[in-house]
Amino acid sequence: MPLRLDSADTDFEQRFSDLLAGKREASQEVGDVVAGIIADVRKRGDEAVVELTNRFDKADVSAQTLRFTPEEIAAASARVTPEVRAALQTAHDRIKAHHEKQKPVDHVYTDDIGVTLGSRWTAVDAVGIYVPGGLASYPSSVLMNAVPAHVAGVKRIAMVVPTPNGHYSPAILAAAEIAGVTEIYRIGGAQAVAALAYGTATIPRVDKVVGPGNAYVAAAKRQVFGQVGIDMIAGPSEVLVIADGSANPAWVAADLIAQAEHGGGAQSILVTTDPGLADAVAAEVDRQLSLLPKQSIAREGWEEFGAIITVDSLDIATELANRIASEHVELAVDDPQSLVPAIRHAGAIFLGHHTPEAIGDYVGGSNHVLPTARSARFASGLGVLDFVKRTSILGCTPSSLSALADAAVTIAEVEALDGHGRSISIRLNR
Amino acid sequence: MPLRLDSADTDFEQRFSDLLAGKREASQEVGDVVAGIIADVRKRGDEAVVELTNRFDKADVSAQTLRFTPEEIAAASARVTPEVRAALQTAHDRIKAHHEKQKPVDHVYTDDIGVTLGSRWTAVDAVGIYVPGGLASYPSSVLMNAVPAHVAGVKRIAMVVPTPNGHYSPAILAAAEIAGVTEIYRIGGAQAVAALAYGTATIPRVDKVVGPGNAYVAAAKRQVFGQVGIDMIAGPSEVLVIADGSANPAWVAADLIAQAEHGGGAQSILVTTDPGLADAVAAEVDRQLSLLPKQSIAREGWEEFGAIITVDSLDIATELANRIASEHVELAVDDPQSLVPAIRHAGAIFLGHHTPEAIGDYVGGSNHVLPTARSARFASGLGVLDFVKRTSILGCTPSSLSALADAAVTIAEVEALDGHGRSISIRLNR
Repeated sequence: MPLRLDSADTDFEQRFSDLLAGKREASQEVGDVVAGIIADVRKRGDEAVVELTNRFDKADVSAQTLRFTPEEIAAASARVTPEVRAALQTAHDRIKAHHEKQKPVDHVYTDDIGVTLGSRWTAVDAVGIYVPGGLASYPSSVLMNAVPAHVAGVKRIAMVVPTPNGHYSPAILAAAEIAGVTEIYRIGGAQAVAALAYGTATIPRVDKVVGPGNAYVAAAKRQVFGQVGIDMIAGPSEVLVIADGSANPAWVAADLIAQAEHGGGAQSILVTTDPGLADAVAAEVDRQLSLLPKQSIAREGWEEFGAIITVDSLDIATELANRIASEHVELAVDDPQSLVPAIRHAGAIFLGHHTPEAIGDYVGGSNHVLPTARSARFASGLGVLDFVKRTSILGCTPSSLSALADAAVTIAEVEALDGHGRSISIRLNR
Repeated sequence: MPLRLDSADTDFEQRFSDLLAGKREASQEVGDVVAGIIADVRKRGDEAVVELTNRFDKADVSAQTLRFTPEEIAAASARVTPEVRAALQTAHDRIKAHHEKQKPVDHVYTDDIGVTLGSRWTAVDAVGIYVPGGLASYPSSVLMNAVPAHVAGVKRIAMVVPTPNGHYSPAILAAAEIAGVTEIYRIGGAQAVAALAYGTATIPRVDKVVGPGNAYVAAAKRQVFGQVGIDMIAGPSEVLVIADGSANPAWVAADLIAQAEHGGGAQSILVTTDPGLADAVAAEVDRQLSLLPKQSIAREGWEEFGAIITVDSLDIATELANRIASEHVELAVDDPQSLVPAIRHAGAIFLGHHTPEAIGDYVGGSNHVLPTARSARFASGLGVLDFVKRTSILGCTPSSLSALADAAVTIAEVEALDGHGRSISIRLNR
């Protein structure tokens, strides 16, 4: 049974806080192991990468076969049906079109005393994309990571994907081909992150590493941060559905199940003003789960981490939404636009009854890499801004430098940085 | 003696690579100590913070005196001279005016098939600003961190500053007052970062922690990343001056010294097309160093980490600049604007002979918190974007959902996520 709460209950605050604080991931203490792997890859390069890959992935690679050949990519991609290829192409084109609108513009201006100020944006030179192998191996994620990088103008995109027992997904390579990614290595785990961050003879280092992965990958990204940039540390996926009496219980139930089927701690929460809907959705989840081919993961996830919360008003619903700060927030209400301004913390908002979260996972055009585990309080979904960086521009004329000099020299003195002050005063004709 | 290189030398590539790879910071293995401190603060809250503060800072605080009172802030601030207050106010106003122009705008649109797509920006609720105590205690840094947060719309800004032996800088508290920061705790180190990230009875948790600090602070930020957002991990400061024959050797020397006086691994590099200027600058640095009141730090930094590189053309200079990816790049050349497009990786660019880097440290208006240690390859300086986050908006109509359904369901099938496909198909009237 999923958790059932009502915001009017006397113990609501405590139980809701417990729900927020609940850990949904087994925290693995892998930091030391990962530190050892990174040190090994830095020291022995390809030799370490090959050895660790063959050990952990039960693979049989050498430095010569670490990288997929163009022929291997083409052959794998050819095994994908025309329908799948067309669907991935549709997804690609829509993601590209939307992300084109995210490109930041340079802005340089001169202020009233003649100082030139501004921001100039440039692309990261080289990006590494981590793609998980095995069960959670998603071609859509290849597109969601590679397309914004391409749109940003990244010149080199290197992809890594582990091939446990030598197996790999044709759809992953097809998605890479559609996204124009041609540099693909059959490696994974902390060793892949280390190779991308520090480089080996076969794998030139990149400037930033993005993409989801298991606890080892997450720990490796945390440790190489600074040597390279990283995106977020991804946790289990989650959805919050806010529904009023206008919602269709079967549709809401389907969305809760879609999230729960990710497993690994994925969480589905319904907050509704309608107790009748709450009951109907609970029954529908049970009914639909029994019809789902692989129902065990979704059922376990729903029963362990799911929650249905009844509230007295949509105001309370949006207040709870801000405290949950969910990766995905669906507004299954009569007037979704009216709730948007009140929701301050959410990775993505899905408007109205005809926008299931899954459409955003694939072909909506927005990015499905979104902040999890309440990090929407401070983080954004992946986008073009993750693959560019801003350089400040500052330029003084003799007169504007003169106008600012006294204040600058005064602060330099307070900070006991005489050299700073002198670098200004030496330029003044006083 | 600083390093002298010429790009035409046969061993240049090797020696330049060595310069890039050179470590300028003693890497301290503090991860385990910091992990222990964070665990202690999470478990014992204020008690741990007080105990660690009294031990490490040789202070005498209790939970009741952790926070500066309004009277203490006012009294400290009153000890600052009117000149300093005016200079800090000038800096504040210029930083504010510039950062106002960085505020991102929401963009929501409807595409050709009727899908609503967009980005909405909201402020982080609560931010913690770490301000170092002791030697490198800079009021300008208070402004550079607090002002962008205020401009972004952050409602709560909590500042922490250690008070070794009970001492603190009046100018730091004056800068906080000018920036409107009133929640200030006399704590530092990993325990301050842990308190901000996880909260204690006295110190409510924040959503993001920014600001520079020592190796313990850096390690703590790395470890709490995910629980809260963090800004960059700051390394030693650095400047790259690109100069042609039009540069004034005394001015260039003053800028190299200003950077070197930060100590702690700070690095000053001159790249010039004019061998005569190279010699003149080297002589000027020696001459000016001997006139600097506290010359030992600057001299040691210049001799240990400084470099003068002569090149045959400004093209080679900008190419080296991109490989160095310096925090600060000064263009001490006749036509600085002409070089800007070629410089892809830099925290900030300073245009022309009358823009010493120090003006940007204080009153230029741009932010002085910039990416160090070659991280300008992938990171930006601090700005308003660091204190906001983007929520994606997606909305389908019945007809646009229908138009996209087949592609989405096809990808869901390839990814073996049947529940995803069903959440879409259940909404179709087919």
